[in-house]
Amino acid sequence: MTNRLRIGVAGLGTVGAGVVRLLQEHSDLLARRAGRPLAITAVSARDRNRDRGIDLSSFAWFDDPAELAASGEVDLVVELIGGSDGIAKRVCEKAIANGKPVVTANKALIAIHGTALAKAAEEAGVTIGFEAAVAGGIPIVKALREGLAGNAINRVYGILNGTCNYIMTQMRETGRDFEDVLGEAQTLGYAEADPSFDVDGVDAAHKLAILASVAFGCPVDFDAVHVEGVRHVSATDIAYADELGYRIKLLAIARTTEHGLEQRVHPCMVSLDNPIAHVDGVFNAVVAEGDFVDRTVFEGRGAGAGPTASAVVADILDCASGRRAPTFGTPAAALTSIPASPMAHHQGRYYIRLMVQDRAGVIADVSAVLRDEQISIGSMLQSGRSKQDAVPVILITHEAEEAGMARAMQRIAELEPVMQEPRMIRIEEF
Amino acid sequence: MTNRLRIGVAGLGTVGAGVVRLLQEHSDLLARRAGRPLAITAVSARDRNRDRGIDLSSFAWFDDPAELAASGEVDLVVELIGGSDGIAKRVCEKAIANGKPVVTANKALIAIHGTALAKAAEEAGVTIGFEAAVAGGIPIVKALREGLAGNAINRVYGILNGTCNYIMTQMRETGRDFEDVLGEAQTLGYAEADPSFDVDGVDAAHKLAILASVAFGCPVDFDAVHVEGVRHVSATDIAYADELGYRIKLLAIARTTEHGLEQRVHPCMVSLDNPIAHVDGVFNAVVAEGDFVDRTVFEGRGAGAGPTASAVVADILDCASGRRAPTFGTPAAALTSIPASPMAHHQGRYYIRLMVQDRAGVIADVSAVLRDEQISIGSMLQSGRSKQDAVPVILITHEAEEAGMARAMQRIAELEPVMQEPRMIRIEEF
Repeated sequence: MTNRLRIGVAGLGTVGAGVVRLLQEHSDLLARRAGRPLAITAVSARDRNRDRGIDLSSFAWFDDPAELAASGEVDLVVELIGGSDGIAKRVCEKAIANGKPVVTANKALIAIHGTALAKAAEEAGVTIGFEAAVAGGIPIVKALREGLAGNAINRVYGILNGTCNYIMTQMRETGRDFEDVLGEAQTLGYAEADPSFDVDGVDAAHKLAILASVAFGCPVDFDAVHVEGVRHVSATDIAYADELGYRIKLLAIARTTEHGLEQRVHPCMVSLDNPIAHVDGVFNAVVAEGDFVDRTVFEGRGAGAGPTASAVVADILDCASGRRAPTFGTPAAALTSIPASPMAHHQGRYYIRLMVQDRAGVIADVSAVLRDEQISIGSMLQSGRSKQDAVPVILITHEAEEAGMARAMQRIAELEPVMQEPRMIRIEEF
Repeated sequence: MTNRLRIGVAGLGTVGAGVVRLLQEHSDLLARRAGRPLAITAVSARDRNRDRGIDLSSFAWFDDPAELAASGEVDLVVELIGGSDGIAKRVCEKAIANGKPVVTANKALIAIHGTALAKAAEEAGVTIGFEAAVAGGIPIVKALREGLAGNAINRVYGILNGTCNYIMTQMRETGRDFEDVLGEAQTLGYAEADPSFDVDGVDAAHKLAILASVAFGCPVDFDAVHVEGVRHVSATDIAYADELGYRIKLLAIARTTEHGLEQRVHPCMVSLDNPIAHVDGVFNAVVAEGDFVDRTVFEGRGAGAGPTASAVVADILDCASGRRAPTFGTPAAALTSIPASPMAHHQGRYYIRLMVQDRAGVIADVSAVLRDEQISIGSMLQSGRSKQDAVPVILITHEAEEAGMARAMQRIAELEPVMQEPRMIRIEEF
């Protein structure tokens, strides 16, 4: 048993406990696949006495996870503490400085410090695995880094946040509004007490920045991601999407345009023809389009102890088997920056919803604003009529530029018969 | 450039030409990802003078691909000749005997001789990559072998033959019959002049046997696969499937049961709830269910020069980067046979279509036969009425055992008012 891989696990929350359970339950299977035993030797967490439903008695306990990372009893460090800075970052740096490979599920850390960590790791001759940081159990990092590595990728996009997808799905299925469904999701444990990282799109943006680096061979650039969340998506919008043959999904999209690399997270209208329109509930999906392979779709659970542990252990197995790839598919020193394509240059069709007083001349005013910005209207819907209340008017534009759309939306908001903030949702073409 | 990987390509059909083109077009990208140049140095094919739209002048030409495999100018052999025996097998054996890794798209070869080749390769210390043999551009072999390797797999299934899926999709969309759509598929190049390997399920069975070995850690056992094709699926069945909320798909399914490992390829009724029901046309999809990761779905193009070249080059990149995994995820010597679960023990619900004379008592006779075999009827449909022609009667059974179903079908066929061979399609539950 001298060649066993000694694993230290820092962080024993839901995912950490799942990793311990997987390594224990499948120890024979994993040893057969790796050709050597995988053994947890050390663990660290905030509270030693919490009941996690797993037996920790045979592992060395560290109050300080950075000490675990430096321990001579540990060959590989699993970082499951979370957070882009502070202790999680210190643990990873310490492991690398001590010549140890790192496996992490920490998307914030990799999205913000990934390039620096990759450089440090590659200089130290060790690997950082972060399969679990993106799309939970879906082996999408490996797929992009190795399985599709023969392709130039044109676009990679997906549903990367299960909380938002659950909320959008529930809103559609029940007709309820955002706040109502969010509250239920919190009760069910699908959303955090403070849901802002999820519903404001930050979590999906972290994951997108990582995927983009692997797909396009550029340094991770979280700051370049345009981020909008799902708080403004209303039951009315979802009902109209249905009527128009779309689903509303929070998509994370990275693609090359004539202006550079576009990275954006926002609610999208997705045509029912696209497989991703049918990915519902807490499931995640990623679509990668390569020049030789064409469209590939990957779907699975994006969170939870089991799926995340599956991804963590896949990285551990790669390490145990001596399989190495450059951290982001391209060696860190060869990652090449691509200029950020500004959102103002984004081209696409737009869904616009206005709540207006039902009186003659409103459409003429709105149309005039759009005409001034050279935006042409593809179709218009006004189904309800009311003398008292605001009624919805739906406009679908032809292809237009974001900058002009933004100006038009502002001017439309100022029109007197427009009673509420106008809403815009981008229509994504595939 | 001393550490470049010298590649010999044996077989220059559509896929071979695609591989040459990919390696040439993306030479910089691939060198950056692999950390070393990939260079084709030798090629072999039947006809040296055929115009393939690629420049072969800088490669050494071999009339005999086995000589290419032994050449001192070649570090890695790409076998794209095809066929389970004969020259393709000799080329692979020769390469392994000369200590060279092999990359192949040959599903018949791996399905029939995969275990022996894996043993030989692992003893020689080289790898055999066969990502391109299953589901074209979808990196499913890598996903099962590495990305999901932390899981015990319960079931793996998919749409593995694009020709059949194209035909089933066209039949549904146009209401035409099998022979008609097959003829069109042949004209369009989606089906071979002799389509039997595809439409009789053999091609899908080859791929399933390979997937099952990777998923369950057992030797490849093509002979254990129960195989039925799509020739008997009629436009009538497809229309009834629609009415009942199903799609008819040729599925390849491997799963563990109480009797052992069940491997089967046959037309299935798939509920619209399952993502695989929506995979249409020439697309392939694979679903893998792991105990920790739960359901993962992989979709993409299952054939064609580009997607297949993408998979071949991914294997070449693994090799160039020194990434190694046991051939079937588990070392060949540790592959463990699992008893074949006989089809007679298969349990499931069944769709039965009878063409009967429209007269009193028919249903009573059929019901009696089913009762004798302890098969209970969940629902029945008889929509048309005719004094002259046979009318269809559709029965959906509750869960039943295949052996009893087979006996019942035989007895029903002998009933006097049953005018044509009764048809049965298994309903797959997910």
